[in-house]
Amino acid sequence: MFRPMMRRSWRPLATALKPSLASRSYASAGSPAFEWQDPLNSKALLTEEELAISETAERYCQERMLPRVLQAYRDENYDAAILSEMGELGLLGANLEGYGCAGVSTVASGLITRAVERVDSGYRSGMSVQSSLVMGGIHTFGTAEQKDKFLPGMAKGKLLGAFGLTEPNHGSDPGSMETTARPHPSKKGYLLLSGAKTWITNSPIADVFMIWAKLQETGKIKGFLVERKDCPPGTLETPAIKNKNGLRASITGMIQLDDCPVPEANMFPDVEGLTGPFTCLNSARYGIAFGTMGALEDCIERARTYALERKQFKNNPIAKYQLVQKKLADAVTDAAFGTLAAIQVGRLKDEGKATPEMISMIKRQNCDRALVHARTLQEVFGGNAVSDEYGIGRHVANLFVTQTYEGQSDIHSLILGRAITGLQAFV
Amino acid sequence: MFRPMMRRSWRPLATALKPSLASRSYASAGSPAFEWQDPLNSKALLTEEELAISETAERYCQERMLPRVLQAYRDENYDAAILSEMGELGLLGANLEGYGCAGVSTVASGLITRAVERVDSGYRSGMSVQSSLVMGGIHTFGTAEQKDKFLPGMAKGKLLGAFGLTEPNHGSDPGSMETTARPHPSKKGYLLLSGAKTWITNSPIADVFMIWAKLQETGKIKGFLVERKDCPPGTLETPAIKNKNGLRASITGMIQLDDCPVPEANMFPDVEGLTGPFTCLNSARYGIAFGTMGALEDCIERARTYALERKQFKNNPIAKYQLVQKKLADAVTDAAFGTLAAIQVGRLKDEGKATPEMISMIKRQNCDRALVHARTLQEVFGGNAVSDEYGIGRHVANLFVTQTYEGQSDIHSLILGRAITGLQAFV
Amino acid sequence: MFRPMMRRSWRPLATALKPSLASRSYASAGSPAFEWQDPLNSKALLTEEELAISETAERYCQERMLPRVLQAYRDENYDAAILSEMGELGLLGANLEGYGCAGVSTVASGLITRAVERVDSGYRSGMSVQSSLVMGGIHTFGTAEQKDKFLPGMAKGKLLGAFGLTEPNHGSDPGSMETTARPHPSKKGYLLLSGAKTWITNSPIADVFMIWAKLQETGKIKGFLVERKDCPPGTLETPAIKNKNGLRASITGMIQLDDCPVPEANMFPDVEGLTGPFTCLNSARYGIAFGTMGALEDCIERARTYALERKQFKNNPIAKYQLVQKKLADAVTDAAFGTLAAIQVGRLKDEGKATPEMISMIKRQNCDRALVHARTLQEVFGGNAVSDEYGIGRHVANLFVTQTYEGQSDIHSLILGRAITGLQAFV
Amino acid sequence: MFRPMMRRSWRPLATALKPSLASRSYASAGSPAFEWQDPLNSKALLTEEELAISETAERYCQERMLPRVLQAYRDENYDAAILSEMGELGLLGANLEGYGCAGVSTVASGLITRAVERVDSGYRSGMSVQSSLVMGGIHTFGTAEQKDKFLPGMAKGKLLGAFGLTEPNHGSDPGSMETTARPHPSKKGYLLLSGAKTWITNSPIADVFMIWAKLQETGKIKGFLVERKDCPPGTLETPAIKNKNGLRASITGMIQLDDCPVPEANMFPDVEGLTGPFTCLNSARYGIAFGTMGALEDCIERARTYALERKQFKNNPIAKYQLVQKKLADAVTDAAFGTLAAIQVGRLKDEGKATPEMISMIKRQNCDRALVHARTLQEVFGGNAVSDEYGIGRHVANLFVTQTYEGQSDIHSLILGRAITGLQAFV
Repeated sequence: MFRPMMRRSWRPLATALKPSLASRSYASAGSPAFEWQDPLNSKALLTEEELAISETAERYCQERMLPRVLQAYRDENYDAAILSEMGELGLLGANLEGYGCAGVSTVASGLITRAVERVDSGYRSGMSVQSSLVMGGIHTFGTAEQKDKFLPGMAKGKLLGAFGLTEPNHGSDPGSMETTARPHPSKKGYLLLSGAKTWITNSPIADVFMIWAKLQETGKIKGFLVERKDCPPGTLETPAIKNKNGLRASITGMIQLDDCPVPEANMFPDVEGLTGPFTCLNSARYGIAFGTMGALEDCIERARTYALERKQFKNNPIAKYQLVQKKLADAVTDAAFGTLAAIQVGRLKDEGKATPEMISMIKRQNCDRALVHARTLQEVFGGNAVSDEYGIGRHVANLFVTQTYEGQSDIHSLILGRAITGLQAFV
Repeated sequence: MFRPMMRRSWRPLATALKPSLASRSYASAGSPAFEWQDPLNSKALLTEEELAISETAERYCQERMLPRVLQAYRDENYDAAILSEMGELGLLGANLEGYGCAGVSTVASGLITRAVERVDSGYRSGMSVQSSLVMGGIHTFGTAEQKDKFLPGMAKGKLLGAFGLTEPNHGSDPGSMETTARPHPSKKGYLLLSGAKTWITNSPIADVFMIWAKLQETGKIKGFLVERKDCPPGTLETPAIKNKNGLRASITGMIQLDDCPVPEANMFPDVEGLTGPFTCLNSARYGIAFGTMGALEDCIERARTYALERKQFKNNPIAKYQLVQKKLADAVTDAAFGTLAAIQVGRLKDEGKATPEMISMIKRQNCDRALVHARTLQEVFGGNAVSDEYGIGRHVANLFVTQTYEGQSDIHSLILGRAITGLQAFV
Repeated sequence: MFRPMMRRSWRPLATALKPSLASRSYASAGSPAFEWQDPLNSKALLTEEELAISETAERYCQERMLPRVLQAYRDENYDAAILSEMGELGLLGANLEGYGCAGVSTVASGLITRAVERVDSGYRSGMSVQSSLVMGGIHTFGTAEQKDKFLPGMAKGKLLGAFGLTEPNHGSDPGSMETTARPHPSKKGYLLLSGAKTWITNSPIADVFMIWAKLQETGKIKGFLVERKDCPPGTLETPAIKNKNGLRASITGMIQLDDCPVPEANMFPDVEGLTGPFTCLNSARYGIAFGTMGALEDCIERARTYALERKQFKNNPIAKYQLVQKKLADAVTDAAFGTLAAIQVGRLKDEGKATPEMISMIKRQNCDRALVHARTLQEVFGGNAVSDEYGIGRHVANLFVTQTYEGQSDIHSLILGRAITGLQAFV
Repeated sequence: MFRPMMRRSWRPLATALKPSLASRSYASAGSPAFEWQDPLNSKALLTEEELAISETAERYCQERMLPRVLQAYRDENYDAAILSEMGELGLLGANLEGYGCAGVSTVASGLITRAVERVDSGYRSGMSVQSSLVMGGIHTFGTAEQKDKFLPGMAKGKLLGAFGLTEPNHGSDPGSMETTARPHPSKKGYLLLSGAKTWITNSPIADVFMIWAKLQETGKIKGFLVERKDCPPGTLETPAIKNKNGLRASITGMIQLDDCPVPEANMFPDVEGLTGPFTCLNSARYGIAFGTMGALEDCIERARTYALERKQFKNNPIAKYQLVQKKLADAVTDAAFGTLAAIQVGRLKDEGKATPEMISMIKRQNCDRALVHARTLQEVFGGNAVSDEYGIGRHVANLFVTQTYEGQSDIHSLILGRAITGLQAFV
């Protein structure tokens, strides 16, 4: 049980770290040697606690998650135990205060997502939904009762959450959602939810669903916490969506609501409109921005290793090719720049100075650049890239999805464009 | 049985074409309307026979292949019946003369690969190996006896071939191959082949293997036709390679040779060194250059359809977005340019004026551009792209492989660079 | 006097060609050697006459134009004698029939623009205005009298033309033009033109101006031929625009019309709306599409030469660098593809099968790719690129302008997007 | 005289700032509004002093430099008074300690270069040579006497410096330099320098030249301070290089040394080999990395303003176009990321934790991205971009030079590649 250790001190864990891991990030601090894993020395910006959290998370992910991911991806099979293991370690909802959460900095929470996404974006997605979308939403908008009821179990990973916003016909434009909540015709204090949500990470295994729906009477969007155990048969279905091109190590499904009864006590009382879901998404997007840097770094490490080991033409390692070195240099540069930007926005967030556009900017840029470089580095593997054992093809497929979800890249460019020009260009 | 029809006339088939297919390529010839499917009117460069061949191939592929591909890709399962069906239609080794082959133009053979790759690059790969690498190689380098023995059955798709050049440690640099052929110590007129080949399309199901190996005595590379039925147990193994990231609808494997006896009569008598395999590859690369245009065109068609049907923001189809239109315009342009280049090189090939560098150029460019645009068009699908039913993710994964096999893009750029500068830059 | 020779036979000129020029394009036809200057053997698509025309044009341009361009560009000084020299050679309005024009194929006219733009896009611009916009417009829309009056002098380069469409506030959207034509209040059979046109190539030196203006009464756009010699003082001003960033070897100015009287006989009788100017632009854009390939080819030749001569690190020519070879390979490929596309559209044009969208496509793509590669090849020169004597900086600056004039690249992408989707995305 | 103020407090100057300038960078701190001029709130990382220095520098540059640059660029005329004005303000060698220098942080010196390069990269180049290359070199490697003799005058901008490393045949590979220093055959304590340096900013107007030459006896590279006033006629020539494609507002020339006598006291005593010049370059490159962000930000501001003012199609500002907004969003993002990276490396530099590879990384990336975006934003201006009055064409031309000097982008990619892989790929 790592948990208590986490609050008191993250340090001791580091002593047990495998050398290979330790050397990844913490080569002789002080001496100004260039480290390709952290070329602009971003760790100099981290606190002792953050460094320790990062080590803990990296250790868990490399030792416990990594061995599972290849088979999970092949089989499209998500091991829900991962969330409870992360809960044990205190990695869920880590930046929230109270309710059994660790209350660490936003940057520290980003370091956790980076560690997880270094293994797989799907695993990070599963965690983001739990931590940022659902726990974060309840923490921000929930009543005291709602927080007490849900957050402790979710922090431990014993109660799983899903976030229901996107609908089949409304992806980039959630304001047009069709899911409705109407007063229960007979049961006082209850509403009936009807509608369909799709591309919902964790939905087939979730215990609690944060559903965004329009009140039939006012047309205003409100948030509801739907508990699976309380839904009468036939009112809630969560079929899995299979045969995905990416994020196959996470589980995805639909949420189908057919006059599903929900007590008014499970509605967020104050928040209305898109403010609610957008606040949750903002937090999750921060995690994506930081997380994708982990996936990119893993691609770099894999490509570098391959290029040093693979010999062609007079037995030279292909790492000696100019064309290969340029690919590595380009990727390493964007990883370094993207990490600094993510840290900066995290600091601003904790100081109350971050804006949604900042999040749009780093989410978009880091996803875009991670994807571009993952694809370019995949070329280093030549024909061997087609084998899933090299791992990079999985990152490429995953990162495409990260670029499209929680705001496709083009949509974020228009959000930024609007902020820059004052004009909106959505057709 | 379409076959006889093919030699006499390709025309009649066209009458049975489904309207949707007919309209794909043959809108009112003569009137100068812009056709997005063929923006620079490449069909004006085709002969009547070539148009008819293209129609036949497109019809077969859309009607018979397309319904199989989704499940085949999911299951990594190649239906070998496809090759015999293609053989029935006369689509295998179509540009070869005699031995039951159709003897059509190089451009016509390119149109066939385009039709097949419009469905799936994996299906086209299976055909390319049979037609260009193995049949083409036998036709060019084989003795009269070898041709008589193998080509008729291969043309019918009853005898399947595989091409063994690439080795685990020698991809871009086949001259360093380690597979050897040594004189049989006891059986006169036989050699023993030993070594391993990898990433061999069709190897697990092939009947005949064209193996390139170094003669132990001279170190010179020679080509051998190894027949599975004649190999003693344990001398030939062809394990499948599973869990591929792309080309999952084609079957790939290794070829492991352990003192496998081959009669001298199965060796190509005259060709020596890399001339042999490079000639075969040259022909196959032409097919790839033309074929990938089919995959790209299918991506365009799928993205266009999706963009017209998908509504967001005030119920506008997303096809009305500038950012979407630019993606389509870019892709359509490269498809049009690439098709013209492929036709030009085909014509030059038939006139004896094509050079290997021309093939390098169109193979590289068309694979690169098809891949780039497939990826960009995939963005049009937003989150839905992750569902394999939209097909575009499959093309994206396939096209990455086409960019890396038979000469990775960077290798071809150095081949071109050498031709341009007279200097070689392989390290 | 080359002219008469041109109509009878272009051949004899070739015999006088300098060896260096001859070797540029016509190395031993028949032998399948790769020629980096024409990698996909586009010359195999040309007729004897076209080859001869190309030789004549190339010879003139290399021998007579090239020595002038460096100083002309520095001084922003256009030598109007160039047009009369070209007229002497029959290179103006070459694809028009009659009136002293050569009546050659569209492809031949493209070869001429390529030869000129190999030297400088500004020189090509000056020619395009004369040949395509003004002569082409008169030939298409003019009355017999107008043709007789203007075309012979223009073909000889003794009468210079300018094309007035773009206005200061209306670039991409000419339909909103503000220039008007109103009936002369006192002089019967005359109209008065008022308004301002800008970025008009040749305007300061032109004798005749094709002005597009709205009839005050109907608001319909009509075309007028304004003769400088007939304009009363103060009714026509054509101030030069100086200090341009590119196309400095061509002369550019405004056209300011202040109740400028024009006889009705100088109005195009039948054409109305944007059909007129767009038809002219279509023809000019074809010339740009072909011409920019010449500029790109010159960049390739200059960069290749530099890279072979420049030695760094152990005295190796930098042409041996992979990063340099890739730049060359990329550029050569797009030059080859773009040339094929330009030839194809030229052929279709002569057969009445070309559409405006085809022209948009090749104009856009060839300008875009020429610009991209010119910039990339400029990197090969390292710090030396800053010296104007290497010529490539001039091409870079010029090609940016070709990308923006006669339809900026983005505008053409939306024209193509509209043709592909049926939806228009201009805001 | 601003100077004394600078050491005591930078603040008072701010009060005199023009409102437009004040609003550029310092909108209501604290409220989390998105500022497109500083999207990731980099100013939150700056000290009060740094903010004040930045304001002073921006004010001077906008008020005093900007009005001069258009004509200077047209005429290729550098006003040497600029350096003395900057000296008055304390902006030269600002991060050096003592000798009349301000001793500010590395980040503060970067903010100064950003302010200067917001106006023009040529002006920044002139300053970089003075501050980083020559003053920085003397400060680091000079004897006490050398420092006392040169630094105070240089800090005031009364003594101008030039840095002589690059030779006509040795750009990226200075180790092969041909300039030599041999013992004076007759005059004891003197050496004779012979050789040629080229592309030397400020050389025609410089008073003191830092010349890197090989000792004839040992072949080791040493640094010398050559004073123009002490050179006998004919031993030092510094002809200007005219007709540049970029950086036309800075003055560039050669340094021709013909047995030029230099006292041994003017040699750097301890530094040997490429360490000397590379240390100077490292410092200058930092300034370039920060400075180019200023040029990029100016491009953004100019393009944004133009796009908001320019109306097309139904009188909509083109800033409403998706294609325009994406260009702005992309550029703003890289400006924000690049600024954070520059600040981070500056902080590390002051802590002794920066490595040369970090400088390579930010110099390369920031130059590359500034160039790419400047070019893309130039497209926003359409045909009007060709007019030099919009300023963006000047930035485009300048930024290309910044990408090639002090390490061309590809060279830095190989430096990074070597650091990442441990293998060197220079041919």
